[in-house]
Amino acid sequence: MAVGLDIPRLLGELTLAEKASLVSGSGFWFTQPVERLGIPAIMVSDGPHGLRAQPPGGGDHVGLGSSLPATCFPTASAIASAWNPELLHRIGQALAQEARACNLSVILGSGINMKRSPLCGRNFEYFSEDPYLAGELAVGIVDGIQSCGVGTSVKHWAANNQETDRLRCDSQVDERTLREIYFPAFARVVEKSQPWTIMCSYNKVNGTSASENTWLLDTVLREEFGFEGLVVSDWGAVYHPVPAVQAGCDLEMPPSKGRSEAAIVAAVESGELSVDVLDARVRTVLELVAKGMHALELDESFDIDAHHALARQAAAESVVLLKNDGLLPLTVEANIAVIGEFARTPRYQGAGSSQVVPTRLDTVLEELQTVYGELPFAAAYGVGDTSNDAVLLVEAEQVAAAADIVVMLIGLPAAEESEGFDRTHLNLPDNQLTALAAVAEANPNVVVVLANGSTVVLGDVLPRASALAEAWLGGQAAGGGIVDVLTGAVNPSGRLAETIPNRLEDNSSYLNFPGEEQSVRYGEGIFIGYRGYDRQHLDVAFPFGFGLSYTSFELSDIKVRMRGSVADETLGATVEVTVTNTGDVDGSEVVQVYVQDVVSTVARPVQELKGFAKVAVPAGGAVQVSIELDQRAFSYWSPRYRRWVVEAGDFEISVGSSSRDLALSQSVTVEAATLLPPLTRDSTLQEWLADPAGRQLVEREVAAGQPGAGMQEGLLEVIGNFPMNALANLNLSLDHDSLDRVAAEWAGQQR
Amino acid sequence: MAVGLDIPRLLGELTLAEKASLVSGSGFWFTQPVERLGIPAIMVSDGPHGLRAQPPGGGDHVGLGSSLPATCFPTASAIASAWNPELLHRIGQALAQEARACNLSVILGSGINMKRSPLCGRNFEYFSEDPYLAGELAVGIVDGIQSCGVGTSVKHWAANNQETDRLRCDSQVDERTLREIYFPAFARVVEKSQPWTIMCSYNKVNGTSASENTWLLDTVLREEFGFEGLVVSDWGAVYHPVPAVQAGCDLEMPPSKGRSEAAIVAAVESGELSVDVLDARVRTVLELVAKGMHALELDESFDIDAHHALARQAAAESVVLLKNDGLLPLTVEANIAVIGEFARTPRYQGAGSSQVVPTRLDTVLEELQTVYGELPFAAAYGVGDTSNDAVLLVEAEQVAAAADIVVMLIGLPAAEESEGFDRTHLNLPDNQLTALAAVAEANPNVVVVLANGSTVVLGDVLPRASALAEAWLGGQAAGGGIVDVLTGAVNPSGRLAETIPNRLEDNSSYLNFPGEEQSVRYGEGIFIGYRGYDRQHLDVAFPFGFGLSYTSFELSDIKVRMRGSVADETLGATVEVTVTNTGDVDGSEVVQVYVQDVVSTVARPVQELKGFAKVAVPAGGAVQVSIELDQRAFSYWSPRYRRWVVEAGDFEISVGSSSRDLALSQSVTVEAATLLPPLTRDSTLQEWLADPAGRQLVEREVAAGQPGAGMQEGLLEVIGNFPMNALANLNLSLDHDSLDRVAAEWAGQQR
Repeated sequence: MAVGLDIPRLLGELTLAEKASLVSGSGFWFTQPVERLGIPAIMVSDGPHGLRAQPPGGGDHVGLGSSLPATCFPTASAIASAWNPELLHRIGQALAQEARACNLSVILGSGINMKRSPLCGRNFEYFSEDPYLAGELAVGIVDGIQSCGVGTSVKHWAANNQETDRLRCDSQVDERTLREIYFPAFARVVEKSQPWTIMCSYNKVNGTSASENTWLLDTVLREEFGFEGLVVSDWGAVYHPVPAVQAGCDLEMPPSKGRSEAAIVAAVESGELSVDVLDARVRTVLELVAKGMHALELDESFDIDAHHALARQAAAESVVLLKNDGLLPLTVEANIAVIGEFARTPRYQGAGSSQVVPTRLDTVLEELQTVYGELPFAAAYGVGDTSNDAVLLVEAEQVAAAADIVVMLIGLPAAEESEGFDRTHLNLPDNQLTALAAVAEANPNVVVVLANGSTVVLGDVLPRASALAEAWLGGQAAGGGIVDVLTGAVNPSGRLAETIPNRLEDNSSYLNFPGEEQSVRYGEGIFIGYRGYDRQHLDVAFPFGFGLSYTSFELSDIKVRMRGSVADETLGATVEVTVTNTGDVDGSEVVQVYVQDVVSTVARPVQELKGFAKVAVPAGGAVQVSIELDQRAFSYWSPRYRRWVVEAGDFEISVGSSSRDLALSQSVTVEAATLLPPLTRDSTLQEWLADPAGRQLVEREVAAGQPGAGMQEGLLEVIGNFPMNALANLNLSLDHDSLDRVAAEWAGQQR
Repeated sequence: MAVGLDIPRLLGELTLAEKASLVSGSGFWFTQPVERLGIPAIMVSDGPHGLRAQPPGGGDHVGLGSSLPATCFPTASAIASAWNPELLHRIGQALAQEARACNLSVILGSGINMKRSPLCGRNFEYFSEDPYLAGELAVGIVDGIQSCGVGTSVKHWAANNQETDRLRCDSQVDERTLREIYFPAFARVVEKSQPWTIMCSYNKVNGTSASENTWLLDTVLREEFGFEGLVVSDWGAVYHPVPAVQAGCDLEMPPSKGRSEAAIVAAVESGELSVDVLDARVRTVLELVAKGMHALELDESFDIDAHHALARQAAAESVVLLKNDGLLPLTVEANIAVIGEFARTPRYQGAGSSQVVPTRLDTVLEELQTVYGELPFAAAYGVGDTSNDAVLLVEAEQVAAAADIVVMLIGLPAAEESEGFDRTHLNLPDNQLTALAAVAEANPNVVVVLANGSTVVLGDVLPRASALAEAWLGGQAAGGGIVDVLTGAVNPSGRLAETIPNRLEDNSSYLNFPGEEQSVRYGEGIFIGYRGYDRQHLDVAFPFGFGLSYTSFELSDIKVRMRGSVADETLGATVEVTVTNTGDVDGSEVVQVYVQDVVSTVARPVQELKGFAKVAVPAGGAVQVSIELDQRAFSYWSPRYRRWVVEAGDFEISVGSSSRDLALSQSVTVEAATLLPPLTRDSTLQEWLADPAGRQLVEREVAAGQPGAGMQEGLLEVIGNFPMNALANLNLSLDHDSLDRVAAEWAGQQR
């Protein structure tokens, strides 16, 4: 049994060729072994919501086919709706247990990219449109997995928010947007959980491939965030191995059949690549092997039933109840019909590298039958062929008409969303909408359950649904989880982790998604998701953070206690509220804290999620919740000053049940040094006049230049934004010499 | 009298110091003379819609104060609404005549920047949100002025679309957007009219100040557009004189009191600046002086009455009738009251460098009284103090109640829009809206006339106006022009040159305007103005191109004749339609031609204005109109191929009375070579398979690598967008060697 690696010794003994071999993998799923030195190969596997471990000696050519059975948990977009890091922690532990049973060392997940557009084909693998929420959820699952001695690979770093031309496309994003939107979830999970590995993405960021991007991999990830683990390329994302090694990409996956190895050896021999840089990459690889090699010796198994039960609990907690005119929860004596092919042939995960072979598979139809006995069922629509089928329609109408309540499943067919391509619209298939309309015509009591990995528009659904539950792609136990919610066995507590807009065109990325000619401009900047809808004052179908319960909650008694100071970087706040369950069933509320900078010198979101807590409250009971905010909650990234900035002034701290249902609010005042650049010749007249000392100096020179003249205030509107340097040419009394004098004197006064 | 300049001789005789002096001006409004060589100083003056010539020896410190009386024609945003280049030609001739009377050589105008945001403080000086319309109007006025031997300075080159921090702000705009939106009006006026000068702007473009931007001044303007004239800096826009001379800025205005001169001499002496480059700038300055010096000898005058009459005609043609429930035209026996301070104290031009001292000034009140005799009047609101005034309100209600019809003027007070700052909202002042509501309550027959330089939102106006006329800032004769329209003496024919949105937030630049920290991202790209509203399928209050008439028109018999070929760059079309005046008064229709590329590989506007014609049609008569389209009408700019591209396929040619009222349409098919990059290792699998020869080669190699295997079509969705180079690592049958073979063979077949 391997008992760790003596890395300094190994670095001394490895040949250049061996070192070059170690920075690529071995086969699709293994690191490179060096047998003569006792360096084993450890195994990695896809697995954000369930393992996709390849059978020994098996698998297909690109590793996308068969894999060993594993528990398929809810996909990321589903489980994010639970707003429950603790649940993700438990799922992480279960995933780790399954990994250990396969002698797997590293699970390739979670995907924490931002949902810039609801069209992104891989959104089902991502958590949210909000970086704070995604970061907290990532901490939950990474901590869960790594607490069991299994590594993670948080992905895809960075600005990988679409599938269109994903290997060549250049994400053109300004730094403020990267810092405030696309980086924070990664920063958070690095800071809190130190993932064993981070996966760099296929795309370019501002002109340079992520795998070759020194600023991304070294400056930001390692130096600024403090990442101590290994950077692995997304599979096929190393385009030039030497620049990749140079930039900080430690491990190329899959290996290039010797080509990269040869190039790296040649580069070291020619002096193009320093061996010290290569050693640093090798050291990181060996550190990962040392951490992961214990898995090779394990002989463990996992409890399929227990994991299925956890998957069912997770699926139920992922359901977001969007509408309920009173049909839900279903009563035990309800006369129910089940309609929709998805009730029999569930859609429960997405296609691509995350696709799991489940250990078992629930269906809504069977799970309802478990509760209610045999039930009438009609398929109503096809999911392979999505044209209208008159026979299916008639049958569905008849089944619907004969029941008191219809439970109808609709959603996106598998062919409509996958890794590898983006959607082009947000619509449900016509044949399903036609079927829904026919069913609702036959029976107005329709409970609609949605199965889809990313947002769909609901304009044609809402008027026909007496109740509507968004169940996402809930994993292998989705059928059971959904039925638990429908029957009230579980009181729904899911909240939207992404806005459901009224129209695709309302999304702020609409004009720029997915770009063209191998380039995509992030033209909306920081205003993605609810930040865009809020800023543009747009109505949405259902706002970020929204979700109904079978009980009702009341928030009260907000208290905000500020602490620390901006100057010390210790600013923070404790937000306390009381949550009362005012209904008659137990339930869980997600208390959400949003922060608004009331007046700022730069454009800021109307509000940003900066804290949340999921809290179970018994019927009639009350619980006090305390949520911490740190300095970052008040900050924006200033490209000009190249740092996080908190501006002095009032901030509004709002607490509520969704981003557009904020019952409580408190204003706080933050003190901070006013951020003014020093006054120079390049400062504008307005900037000089805004500074008391500067104004005095300028007025003195103007009066001296033209006795009795003073400033011509009327001109200020037109020329106030002229830099003094430019004004000095304009025949003002203040000429270049007096400007030199004024600038020098002002600088002298500041010392 | 000067009889031209022998420029080659002068270049030989000028000292270095004299050359350096010539590339700056002399005082605020003159070029630098060199008396010993007989080089005179010629005079320039602001004057896009009227001259602002400084009195001899007078003027204030920055030249923004008093000036000689001159005819104040409608501002650019007003006159653009006439959609009439021929009218602008006549105005240009009148401006030139006034210039000659002042011995002025160059008029600093027109401003042809795009109205990226309705908030831009200087929008009243600009024509349109559409580059085609702006370009055609610019050709009209420049040709008019220059046909009289007076020069123009078309401004502000380039991407100068806001006032906020206008001297330091960096306009970050991608090249396609520059080429398709911000450059074409300049390209057009250069190509057709060769303005004597073009004025470079204050701002930076993609990091480099316009005055130092070799790409803007030299590569694009001179080499590509073929500009042969002089580049003058906006007043104060030269920040570094040597780089400016190097980049192609010929004339720094105003001069820098010797600083630039000294720096240029030093740079030539040190070898930093080539004397040949300096000579080129000096030559351009001397060429301008040679063209303009004849003006110094003129002893002419102009006909104040005739110019006022032209201004009145222009003002009337600038009015856009937005709504008319039947009150207009006013009947001769109408019992009218006039309400609104603007009827007595007109707002007719904007503030800043374009402000003219008019030769006389019409008011709506006086002009109505000329027609109707003494009329009751109430001010209703103040325009200096914009708070509500209860006394004024009561008086207005009483006056309104006693009349049959109220003519009410409202608009933006002068303090709300000016050069030098941007607006922050599109609202009319509260006190005016309150007054309007009170008046409409007292008398529902309200004709509202708007005076504003840039778009205002009309949600509070429309329900209270039985008729609504947008009169913009119509110049000194606006009062008469408006009354001509109200009485029907002139049948309104103005059309919106800018969309009136329902909400500011609907404008596509909203999320990014005006930027921050000295930078503004043009995040909406090409989708400004109606291109944005159309693309996002947004309702607007009044669409681009909209305007009512007192008669009605019918368009019929569309014929589109295509000609030429894309390959020869001779593609074009002639669009013919018949316009019938189906009403009982004479009138003018603006026939608008929009082009849509039905299917394209890049995001293109839903439609773009590519031709128009204003045509007078007698009541009951019909006129056939013929409009030419050139190849550019079908093109987009490809950043990847760095050229204009026409894609093969169907184009829809639509003709109508506004961008959203397109009665006629014809589909045409354009043949063009399919634009495919050569297949290489970097091409994706999809790209290889889309090419018949490529597909054959790939399939051969795959079959050879794994007999009987063939392509795994199911994987295509996930890995189809992988470049072959990346795929070759992924264990596919196609490895690096076979990929080399395939790429070489394919290239061989193409030769």
